[in-house]
Amino acid sequence: MAHDSDTARPVRHGSRGRARRDEILSVALGVIAENGYRGLTLGEVAKRVGLSQQGVLHYFPSKEELLIGVLRQRDEWDVSAPFGGENAVEFTVGDLEMLVEVNAARPEIVRTFSALLGESITEEHPAGPYFKDRYDWVRDSIESTLRGEFGETMPSGITAAQGAIMLTALMDGLQYQWLHDPEKIDMPELFHGLTRLVTGRES
Amino acid sequence: MAHDSDTARPVRHGSRGRARRDEILSVALGVIAENGYRGLTLGEVAKRVGLSQQGVLHYFPSKEELLIGVLRQRDEWDVSAPFGGENAVEFTVGDLEMLVEVNAARPEIVRTFSALLGESITEEHPAGPYFKDRYDWVRDSIESTLRGEFGETMPSGITAAQGAIMLTALMDGLQYQWLHDPEKIDMPELFHGLTRLVTGRES
Repeated sequence: MAHDSDTARPVRHGSRGRARRDEILSVALGVIAENGYRGLTLGEVAKRVGLSQQGVLHYFPSKEELLIGVLRQRDEWDVSAPFGGENAVEFTVGDLEMLVEVNAARPEIVRTFSALLGESITEEHPAGPYFKDRYDWVRDSIESTLRGEFGETMPSGITAAQGAIMLTALMDGLQYQWLHDPEKIDMPELFHGLTRLVTGRES
Repeated sequence: MAHDSDTARPVRHGSRGRARRDEILSVALGVIAENGYRGLTLGEVAKRVGLSQQGVLHYFPSKEELLIGVLRQRDEWDVSAPFGGENAVEFTVGDLEMLVEVNAARPEIVRTFSALLGESITEEHPAGPYFKDRYDWVRDSIESTLRGEFGETMPSGITAAQGAIMLTALMDGLQYQWLHDPEKIDMPELFHGLTRLVTGRES
């Protein structure tokens, strides 16, 4: 699940710059968890990390870049931690289902992702390249997982490539309904039901 | 598919006010189709409709309210025109599939919907009530369609209620991938494949 990108590169590549950059991202994630997507301001992050606002802007030139950085860090965590070790490239459909369970326990980061995904499809939005690139590697990864577990055409009759688009769409789409009505929408159960249908596996 | 709402009510209920309001919405839709979501400004709408900006604000107190008005008008059209006559309340799964085909031919209105859906899940956003309400009636309508055509538990083993959430999520989620990569994502074909899986029907 390796991926490249041309946005939000760290300004410094030295280990001290990298450590400070990671600290800003962790603090930003904490602010989002506490105050929500709209509660994230560069001023609040700067205060908590002990930098001037200008100091934060040195690492992330805008609030959008900082939000993309937070999501990118989540991606790195998601493809390493629950999927069995750093830089893991192999995962299973069961791991995907676990990821949806993890998401159901972190509404504010899901809200950040979903809000930015919505903005990203408007013209020239800074998050556009991040999401386009992310869709490519997410679909490729899921497609290769489905092919490995169920073959080119799965027992359902759906191809691995189609299945990857469908499961990705379901994850994204469920999140909007869930954020609007968390009591009514059981994301993990629904996602589990759909992976069963899309693959055609028995349980 | 009747629905109530407590936002974006017309300011005037007289027929002249209603006609002017409808004209503003049609013009706004045209501006979106030509210039995209970000290209819609109250100034441009006012110019084309021959009102001052203040005049437009009399009908729609903010750009967000105007966008919600455009989407609400699309909803009214969608549940009447392709589904067989004014105020139609009955529709089929085939009508839903046709709706996805219609959407694939109107990227700018889909972009407007998807961008506003993204914003709507942030705190206190003016589009929040519209989307929450819309999800309720869309799911209820699809659920009742699925129940009518396939029974409480469909041949797939999925209930009508679960199927309604899944198909709604698929429509929303596919649109984001399609807007980022229209060449790669064949929305109508994928949605057709999904309705077949979710219902368990043969073709």
